Amino acid sequence: MDYSRVIEEVKHFLNRKLEKTDAEGYVVGVSGGIDSAVTAKLAVEAVGADNVNGWVMPGKPSKNENTADAIELCENLGINYREVSIESTVNEFKDVAPFENSKETLGNIRARTRMVYEYIDANENNLLVLGTGNRSELLIGYFTKYGDAATDISPVADLYKTEIKRLAEHLGLDKKFIDKEPSAGLWDDHSDREEIGLTYHKIDLILKQLIEQEKSVKEIANDDITRQEVERISEMHQKSSHKRSMSEILELRPEK
Amino acid sequence: MDYSRVIEEVKHFLNRKLEKTDAEGYVVGVSGGIDSAVTAKLAVEAVGADNVNGWVMPGKPSKNENTADAIELCENLGINYREVSIESTVNEFKDVAPFENSKETLGNIRARTRMVYEYIDANENNLLVLGTGNRSELLIGYFTKYGDAATDISPVADLYKTEIKRLAEHLGLDKKFIDKEPSAGLWDDHSDREEIGLTYHKIDLILKQLIEQEKSVKEIANDDITRQEVERISEMHQKSSHKRSMSEILELRPEK
Repeated sequence: MDYSRVIEEVKHFLNRKLEKTDAEGYVVGVSGGIDSAVTAKLAVEAVGADNVNGWVMPGKPSKNENTADAIELCENLGINYREVSIESTVNEFKDVAPFENSKETLGNIRARTRMVYEYIDANENNLLVLGTGNRSELLIGYFTKYGDAATDISPVADLYKTEIKRLAEHLGLDKKFIDKEPSAGLWDDHSDREEIGLTYHKIDLILKQLIEQEKSVKEIANDDITRQEVERISEMHQKSSHKRSMSEILELRPEK
Repeated sequence: MDYSRVIEEVKHFLNRKLEKTDAEGYVVGVSGGIDSAVTAKLAVEAVGADNVNGWVMPGKPSKNENTADAIELCENLGINYREVSIESTVNEFKDVAPFENSKETLGNIRARTRMVYEYIDANENNLLVLGTGNRSELLIGYFTKYGDAATDISPVADLYKTEIKRLAEHLGLDKKFIDKEPSAGLWDDHSDREEIGLTYHKIDLILKQLIEQEKSVKEIANDDITRQEVERISEMHQKSSHKRSMSEILELRPEK
């Protein structure tokens, strides 16, 4: 992967999109993680800090290290940003429609609530919402349907998580973004590795062979990667296909 | 259009989807309009009233005729339903992120808020969210991105609005659903006709020629349909293409 070329292509894409849509800039949710840091940095390099709005929306009742990192990033980039606690909104949903309080339901509400806030800004100020997702999470469906992946354009979603790290290095981002433990930020101490059961290093090794090289589960398993691990990723990929496309429409029109 | 065949195909589709996904039933937002009435009725015929949950979520501070019609429909169909006012949630969004209060922004928040509630039910009870959209509104982008069209499957979205009316007649739905003025229900006295500027009769005549028969604007305009009307629909179709697909991903991977 030629990261200098990637950076140029993303910048070109982000500029062209504003021209084509007559939008005036971008909204980006800044979590304190590496994906949104890379995306925000690229947006600033492409269209300038004045045309990027950051939304810092901690996913937990208490502030944490990620919130501080997100705010520091916004300030270093010089973008307009606002910090918003989404907990009162999430609680409102819970009050109106009480539910068992399952972690997953709550996490999905958080991701969707953030989407609603980003689109308020987009609607009111004629902006596009930037997706910060990467290829690894997209391919295994590790995102909330109509939540964090619900954006207008996704400049780095063709890159695996491990490639996002290399891109972050090329962009000169602070090392703490590159080194921190990946987290979807949907509940306290949420760790991608713990929830998925594999590191992104392994996930990407498996996905590249499964998707890019179309290898079978049997061909991919080796001394470092168990057959169970490959099967888990393969199953996550298959079961999440509905999350990568719009609502499935039953075809009813007679053929021409 | 053979509506008896359509009914059978939809019922088959709705049954097969539950089997394939291991979901236990459907969630449907019931607005009091014809599209959701048709969808709810078909769902009940396909999988039984016990497996369909209706959500009645009036889009305005005050209750209106549509709410009463929605509740009456749910009761007649014998489905589990709940009536939820979304206004406190919408106000919460406004309190946290004050905005100019534009009608469109507020309308989009309402549609997205409804989506979040439907997915709470889907998450907690292992259900799929049914789309109630039709082909006319889909093709001209007359829906909220990541709002009302953000569902799992759409059983009647291949049918034009005028065809939904015929289908409603075949299903024996109350005449009031067939006769009432179409409304997206995003603000008080919201009328599709007023906002779009054309009746669905005209919209469908134009779309069928534009999309199905691939005719030019010039070929479609006639004594009853002005060139401006055809151009308006054509422009709405083109400008809304981003609403009919997922977030656009910039391709960055080297070709194989």
